[in-house]
Amino acid sequence: MTAQNRQLRLAKRPVGRIDDTTWEITTEPIPEPGTGEFVVRIQYVSLDPAMRGWLNDVPSYIPPVGIGEVMRAHAVGTVCASQHDSYPVGATVAGMFGACEYALSDGRLVTLVDTDLAPAPTWLGALGFPGMTAYFGITDVGRTKPGDTVLISGAAGAVGSIAGQIASLMGCRVIGIAGGPEKCSWLTEELGFDATIDYRAGSVGRALHEAAPEGIDVYFDNVGGDILNSALAVLRTHARVVLCGAISGYNATTPPPGPSRYLSLLVNRSSMTGFIIFDYLKRFPEAQAALGNWIRRGDLITREQIETGGIEAFGTTLNMLFDGANTGKLVLAM
Amino acid sequence: MTAQNRQLRLAKRPVGRIDDTTWEITTEPIPEPGTGEFVVRIQYVSLDPAMRGWLNDVPSYIPPVGIGEVMRAHAVGTVCASQHDSYPVGATVAGMFGACEYALSDGRLVTLVDTDLAPAPTWLGALGFPGMTAYFGITDVGRTKPGDTVLISGAAGAVGSIAGQIASLMGCRVIGIAGGPEKCSWLTEELGFDATIDYRAGSVGRALHEAAPEGIDVYFDNVGGDILNSALAVLRTHARVVLCGAISGYNATTPPPGPSRYLSLLVNRSSMTGFIIFDYLKRFPEAQAALGNWIRRGDLITREQIETGGIEAFGTTLNMLFDGANTGKLVLAM
Repeated sequence: MTAQNRQLRLAKRPVGRIDDTTWEITTEPIPEPGTGEFVVRIQYVSLDPAMRGWLNDVPSYIPPVGIGEVMRAHAVGTVCASQHDSYPVGATVAGMFGACEYALSDGRLVTLVDTDLAPAPTWLGALGFPGMTAYFGITDVGRTKPGDTVLISGAAGAVGSIAGQIASLMGCRVIGIAGGPEKCSWLTEELGFDATIDYRAGSVGRALHEAAPEGIDVYFDNVGGDILNSALAVLRTHARVVLCGAISGYNATTPPPGPSRYLSLLVNRSSMTGFIIFDYLKRFPEAQAALGNWIRRGDLITREQIETGGIEAFGTTLNMLFDGANTGKLVLAM
Repeated sequence: MTAQNRQLRLAKRPVGRIDDTTWEITTEPIPEPGTGEFVVRIQYVSLDPAMRGWLNDVPSYIPPVGIGEVMRAHAVGTVCASQHDSYPVGATVAGMFGACEYALSDGRLVTLVDTDLAPAPTWLGALGFPGMTAYFGITDVGRTKPGDTVLISGAAGAVGSIAGQIASLMGCRVIGIAGGPEKCSWLTEELGFDATIDYRAGSVGRALHEAAPEGIDVYFDNVGGDILNSALAVLRTHARVVLCGAISGYNATTPPPGPSRYLSLLVNRSSMTGFIIFDYLKRFPEAQAALGNWIRRGDLITREQIETGGIEAFGTTLNMLFDGANTGKLVLAM
């Protein structure tokens, strides 16, 4: 049955929301590793908002996925054949293996996964790119200090849930914005957020003035749109806006409006700074050590939402991100 | 005749463009200095785009001018009566004296003006707040380095014309955006800008791609609006956008749209940072020394456009800024 390797390839660039016409599944023999190579049996594939951007044929920080190419994806799996000393058969590894069942690798940008520290899916979340993004976004880009009031949007997502906990562990007051009462109570009752705002329940602007009457020092933005604009209205002097993502606009077919309140940056001597996690590859060990310590001590709660259905379910699972249908890190079991 | 002191006071908050109903002129006796005080006969009053913001009753970095209050203004004049040892009769001084003919002062935030270095109006321009704004915006906020490609909007204005020359003196390639061929040729032929874009002559976006095919490292924004959006489209990696002003929107009666291309900050790992020159008061000597040296060596060209008409002409002269009717620093002779 699984003696074949199935791969999800980009069939057609989506306009707006992705659908069944976006992908095609191809089948080919499982590759054989050459010298210095190994083959991974993929167990979990990561679903990330940034993937939507990789499907657009526009210049960006990374080339778009080409028509006919295997969909770019971070994934974790087990080495099932190897001619590489560092990655023996049975090792669990994480890497940019793509949306497929088996992947050939030479070890470049591959991480050996310590399943004693955390189960494999966590290496796509808190100990993977989302965790790295949260860590460097809060510490480096946001220059967050103990005592800061930190606002996080997409707070129940893979990045936001870790970013908020890091800020909390650093001694900040943390306010999370999320959709729905379940996510909000998870944030305050389990993750230790100080306050939450349910953006589906009413005016975010009004709720922000109540939750942060003296304003915010750091805004970690995962969503863009109206919520970014509302956050700009409550900046304190010398505040830092960290641009991590803007998921509210990723399926838009015309450019969404920009933040009309951007002059709050001027009045409040504040900054808005974007970053790309791939620039921090060399500093990943620093973040993994910090996050690993917090996990070991039980201070950092990691959560993955594992969807089933294998490679056929990739598109519908990816769309869940844009519907706010996930809590924590969304992964697909293969 | 001038034994009375006339003062321009805010009569009514403007909606949109200021007009005759905005102001009233009051007449009162010239004040007498008490101990530690002096009286200044105002010679030149500064006109600044930020003044429009000071007329709005909204929280900002400085309280709005109150109804019935003398209009806040930087001005330069001669001490005509004094009971203050540091400011004797005959001294030329600059300070926030307001839009009036005579001002009483205790010396707070007042600068003694060296008219051997530059004539009095220059102390409202290159050696006043606009020069300070240009200096710290380029060096400190923009973190400009030799070799950078620096784009300046409002480039023929009081701040822009100095900012561009500072960047040029630092060894940058400087592109200026200004309105009309006269301003543009002044920038390239006299001030040493490397290229200019006449925003009235066609698409700024297209012209920017031609003038900076490899993108820009620093954008010093005085205008906001469509030009800011066009500049965001040509950011290089790790570019810095310096938010100095947004004159294109200051008379708007509904909030102008925000920069829809702000996610260029994310893709290009760039920042957009606002600043207020009043935060740099303690470092003014550093900037004045640098600018003074450049002026002495003939490396920095300063230009003031001196309008006449006295206090009655304040409103119409201020409106010239929003029509792009000035080149260099706009001042009103009293």
